[in-house]
Amino acid sequence: MFTQFAKKKTQDLSVFRVAVEKMAPYVPGEQPGPGQRLIKLNTNENPYPPSPQVRKRVAQALARGMLRLYPPARADALVERASAVFGVSRRAILAGNGCDELLGILFRAVLGRNDALAYPAPSYSLYDTLAAIQEARVRRVAFLAHSEATLAALKRARGKLTIVCNPNSPSGAFTPIEGLSRLARELYPRLLAIDEAYVDFAEDHGLRLLKRHDNVVILRSFSKSFSLAGARLGLCFASPPTIEMLSKIKDSYNVSRLALAAGLGALEDVAWMRRGVERIKRERERARQRLCAMGFEVAPSSANFVFARIPGRDLKPLGAALRQKGILVRHFSSPELCDGLRITIGTRDEMAALYRALESLL
Amino acid sequence: MFTQFAKKKTQDLSVFRVAVEKMAPYVPGEQPGPGQRLIKLNTNENPYPPSPQVRKRVAQALARGMLRLYPPARADALVERASAVFGVSRRAILAGNGCDELLGILFRAVLGRNDALAYPAPSYSLYDTLAAIQEARVRRVAFLAHSEATLAALKRARGKLTIVCNPNSPSGAFTPIEGLSRLARELYPRLLAIDEAYVDFAEDHGLRLLKRHDNVVILRSFSKSFSLAGARLGLCFASPPTIEMLSKIKDSYNVSRLALAAGLGALEDVAWMRRGVERIKRERERARQRLCAMGFEVAPSSANFVFARIPGRDLKPLGAALRQKGILVRHFSSPELCDGLRITIGTRDEMAALYRALESLL
Repeated sequence: MFTQFAKKKTQDLSVFRVAVEKMAPYVPGEQPGPGQRLIKLNTNENPYPPSPQVRKRVAQALARGMLRLYPPARADALVERASAVFGVSRRAILAGNGCDELLGILFRAVLGRNDALAYPAPSYSLYDTLAAIQEARVRRVAFLAHSEATLAALKRARGKLTIVCNPNSPSGAFTPIEGLSRLARELYPRLLAIDEAYVDFAEDHGLRLLKRHDNVVILRSFSKSFSLAGARLGLCFASPPTIEMLSKIKDSYNVSRLALAAGLGALEDVAWMRRGVERIKRERERARQRLCAMGFEVAPSSANFVFARIPGRDLKPLGAALRQKGILVRHFSSPELCDGLRITIGTRDEMAALYRALESLL
Repeated sequence: MFTQFAKKKTQDLSVFRVAVEKMAPYVPGEQPGPGQRLIKLNTNENPYPPSPQVRKRVAQALARGMLRLYPPARADALVERASAVFGVSRRAILAGNGCDELLGILFRAVLGRNDALAYPAPSYSLYDTLAAIQEARVRRVAFLAHSEATLAALKRARGKLTIVCNPNSPSGAFTPIEGLSRLARELYPRLLAIDEAYVDFAEDHGLRLLKRHDNVVILRSFSKSFSLAGARLGLCFASPPTIEMLSKIKDSYNVSRLALAAGLGALEDVAWMRRGVERIKRERERARQRLCAMGFEVAPSSANFVFARIPGRDLKPLGAALRQKGILVRHFSSPELCDGLRITIGTRDEMAALYRALESLL
């Protein structure tokens, strides 16, 4: 029954772009299969469910029998609601199939071969993957303890596109918004993108920069604070001319009716999201104390995870041992990160299980 | 409350790639807003709802409370089901956020600046948009009455990527599979992509070519025959090495849990799809007869639409007059297509309303 691909010779893959053939793919964190009972602290999902309003809106979309029709190309109802919630003009908002899609669109709109992307590293490694697809050069700037020094280095790097993940991953460090405002002015007309996937867990955010700088692009995710990683939805905020340019790249119908309904429900109950965020922030502070007491170095985090290090010790075996005990955390094998584990903040019970497991292992 | 974008000077957009700045965006067909009661025969949606199994599966996905977790990166359950339904190895299947995303991935994987895309024109104009984003050259080959002549021209064009929409849009013409098989052999190792978005409405399809040619890529959509345009789901079939290459480009979590559930439900009830297709095919033949009787030229169609021409007469005003009467059809303004209207096959009642409207207008 199945197609056989046994061939006399292996396929000649020379038709693919060299940049793509050479490229290492982005490797996402492990996703347990159905039925696998694991405590999942590895991909920064929210341990709490989305607002019941999400389920209501998706059920409505199903009941109305509209799935046979293409979704609205500009996600009108969602954008209208987002405009009210975030206080940003509708023409300054673009919805995407997750922030990853919006990042891809931004990179394709700006970066051609040999154009420069600048970002403070280490950060979200997808930036490297997307830059490689565009054959862009990458200017990594060390993420320094003093954000002023990092910002000065980004200014000097003069990327055609600069991207700051704020709060950053995996460090959880927050770059003050006024510093980013200065950087935007210095980089103009080059774009400064601020990846605010985790910003709801921080004390400030950058949306006010849109009023001052039309070269600022802000990305928001529904995957973390809104508990909708499975629905794939993100928002991009930028000047209307920038949004128009990005819209040329996006697929006409890039966000499904189901994701639009889910996102609308989430934005209709922002209070639900805020309550979950507060619980996670409280647990984050406890996690830091507990992990420090066990001998980890844990810098303050403004996100829904902490990065716990034992300087100079590769924690890959520790991560694997946790996996054996049914707890997934994220280990990065790069030299600058291999002595740490990125641990998503879970429920109190999940965190208690983590502490017990770590105490038995250390 | 709203952000003001009033600026002393207009934004300097020089940071965007020239190719993107110059590019005309793909213009999708009109999507009526909520509450607009229009007969929608303009974007080749299915007039019948998807299988009840779709609703059941999506409701289950909602009830299980999994939306807070990222979807499986390789769409395992859907791919497994598709493997059984289509008789193709799992390693030869990639799921996408609609066929448009899969086309974008394919173009990005293969086409660099000045590489050549070849396709028989006129066809789906998104091919031009995606090629422009890659700064690829486009070699349009006339879609000739004799498919042998078209195929010979495609062979001579020697595109790094060749794409044949089969059945084609807007003509509805079907290119015989054996001709495509020969073309694949002649083009090797260059890729031959066959866009089979409409193929369930035709009498044959190209999946068997995967056994013979590892440079064949086949795209299937859930938007037409499966009535899931609103859910955004497509499948790409190709050799496992090609699928691996395309997977490097795709976003990790490109298909939402909701779309995966919808697609799984659709594939669990293929019989429902087949019944809907048969109804549409019967209505398509009636439509051809009725439109011919009114003086249109209507070539045989293997898709869920017909292309009705009055040679030499620009039908834009006729399309606009139908719009006035609450009926949307698709008019293309290019010189080669402006004397026709692409009319999606609707329900019998919708088509009767169309005939009445046309009779009053002609």
